[in-house]
Amino acid sequence: MSQFRFELEHVDSTTGARAGRWHTPHGVVETPAFMPVGTLGTVKGLLPEQLKRAGAQMLLANTYHLALRPGADVVEQLGGLHQFMNWEGPILTDSGGFQVFSLAKLSKLTDDHVTFRSHIDGSLLELSPEKAISIQEQLGADCIMCLDECPPHDVDKKRLHEAVLRTTAWAARCKEAQKREDQALFGIVQGGIETDLREESAAGLLPLEFPGYAIGGLSVGEDPADMYRTLEFTTPLLPQEKPRYLMGVGRPIDLIEGILRGIDLFDCVMPTRNGRNAMAFTSRGPLKLRNARHKRDPMPLDPDGTTEVGRTYSRGYLRHLFVAGEMLGPILLSWHNIEFYQNLVRNLREAILADNSAEFRADQLAQWGGEL
Amino acid sequence: MSQFRFELEHVDSTTGARAGRWHTPHGVVETPAFMPVGTLGTVKGLLPEQLKRAGAQMLLANTYHLALRPGADVVEQLGGLHQFMNWEGPILTDSGGFQVFSLAKLSKLTDDHVTFRSHIDGSLLELSPEKAISIQEQLGADCIMCLDECPPHDVDKKRLHEAVLRTTAWAARCKEAQKREDQALFGIVQGGIETDLREESAAGLLPLEFPGYAIGGLSVGEDPADMYRTLEFTTPLLPQEKPRYLMGVGRPIDLIEGILRGIDLFDCVMPTRNGRNAMAFTSRGPLKLRNARHKRDPMPLDPDGTTEVGRTYSRGYLRHLFVAGEMLGPILLSWHNIEFYQNLVRNLREAILADNSAEFRADQLAQWGGEL
Repeated sequence: MSQFRFELEHVDSTTGARAGRWHTPHGVVETPAFMPVGTLGTVKGLLPEQLKRAGAQMLLANTYHLALRPGADVVEQLGGLHQFMNWEGPILTDSGGFQVFSLAKLSKLTDDHVTFRSHIDGSLLELSPEKAISIQEQLGADCIMCLDECPPHDVDKKRLHEAVLRTTAWAARCKEAQKREDQALFGIVQGGIETDLREESAAGLLPLEFPGYAIGGLSVGEDPADMYRTLEFTTPLLPQEKPRYLMGVGRPIDLIEGILRGIDLFDCVMPTRNGRNAMAFTSRGPLKLRNARHKRDPMPLDPDGTTEVGRTYSRGYLRHLFVAGEMLGPILLSWHNIEFYQNLVRNLREAILADNSAEFRADQLAQWGGEL
Repeated sequence: MSQFRFELEHVDSTTGARAGRWHTPHGVVETPAFMPVGTLGTVKGLLPEQLKRAGAQMLLANTYHLALRPGADVVEQLGGLHQFMNWEGPILTDSGGFQVFSLAKLSKLTDDHVTFRSHIDGSLLELSPEKAISIQEQLGADCIMCLDECPPHDVDKKRLHEAVLRTTAWAARCKEAQKREDQALFGIVQGGIETDLREESAAGLLPLEFPGYAIGGLSVGEDPADMYRTLEFTTPLLPQEKPRYLMGVGRPIDLIEGILRGIDLFDCVMPTRNGRNAMAFTSRGPLKLRNARHKRDPMPLDPDGTTEVGRTYSRGYLRHLFVAGEMLGPILLSWHNIEFYQNLVRNLREAILADNSAEFRADQLAQWGGEL
């Protein structure tokens, strides 16, 4: 019997928002859920226990980065990702494809595989669907991804179509290559913001009966309105009874809009990256902590006290930490922002269960004073 | 009635080691005690709760650094050091003198005051005994220090003598300048490694009846043997019934040797600075975590599991964090090293209470495989 099971608890009657419980070998994830990004086997600056206290249930780690450093074989030898990074809950790894197409210097793309140069030392490497699976099996996450082709958002439709076809063909090879039974392998729907391409992509993947589906190729430079519109016609193409994961998204407002269109899982570096850059999400809107006006500000970071950091540390102290270049500044704001994201998604989940998701969205926008 | 009281619980019958309890406005410090250094109002990379869990009872913050950034008036306006940095326990501030004489570019030294250039922006600043006290009263630590002159360890005896005389004169002015009654002002004994100068310094300070005494001018480049010898003839010059603080010391072995010679309080950046540089103190000796031999090492950092980090994270994972430049490496090793220091001092305290301090020293050296 599969170690994975997705219970759909409730679908909002006025939006597409879903509340569910996803059972994995490392515990249950209450959805919708946001996964903090632990690129290299660590969410930058935070201990696993802090992530747990912030409400994180599941983390994401990047296959491309871990394959380069310390190497998937090293992670495997050190007990696999969970033991390696001391995270007992579920973990998801991406396929490495996104980084190969964005961060690395692409060398050659064929239907068989892609060759690229490492952004660390320039060495020439190769990634194929089979290799992406074997690396992810070494890493040992609960949820793994098919290798997909992620073209830039501004390529022409012909190129976009090629990427869809290649992604479908690669998905079949990934499924064929999978050996471990304790990892849920997701197919990835591509097709940019084109209705017919998304339909073709979904139609190609569905017969492979993946235990869940990801939506890739969004939040890559297109307008948010285009992303929301694309989600609106893409999520209905996916099976109701399986989890849906929107990759690499996004801002708080994007999470709300995605959830209202039927997305269950998200990941994004935004809470941690912005935190390291002295930007805090708060219940009343964003704050830039380096701003001189906070120098003598005794007010707690978040006046509504919805996070541990937000009710404990003054804006003046946080500003001082950033101005003085102290590590604790990035640590505290990363922690705060992740808790902010977790609270948002958990509160929206409650609203879905109460059949109130549309009202939640309106209330939240009013409180933030606009989109956040 | 004074808010400070030093209870001497036991003096070892074969060494000078003392176990005590020092009552302060922010709680009791069980001595001997080691204070982690929170230079700019933060122990680099660590949250107050982590310091507490590591066993730290009292922290040190640096007046010179805080006076430059964010400014003592800013700290005062943000509620004083305890509230500023979210540390409820006792805090000690130094006078700023040590940094003025080492880190800053010294401009002019007179009997009245010292002028220097900020190491941050080169601005010309002035520090006098009165100013050192008023800044420390703004910062609001429990224990504050007289301004002293700290000459380099290799100056001639005449210059060292001048520093002793100036330090004594400045101590009287500091005591005179003190307004707050909730801060214990310590006098600082100077005199290098010279018996007669240390005697003269102590004799000059004792009539001022400070509630505690610090020993300055050690661990500034002299041989450890000279430091131990100096402590041996200096601590007996100080009142038995008052706390004694050895400033800026030191290695684990220095703590043991200092405690066996009657020191109660220590501070040093070593556990955090070494931690940031990938060096860990362990129960079996030091480890350099960047070393390639740890790449696939599944062994926990400290095989004896005496610290939380030491029993949780593998050497292979810690090495990966440092190689990849991840913040979590410095965080975890700083935390581990501070817990190592706290355990050492607490275990030695237990040994003192059992009248076993000499044996503890021998056992510890055997376990470490030499001095640590």
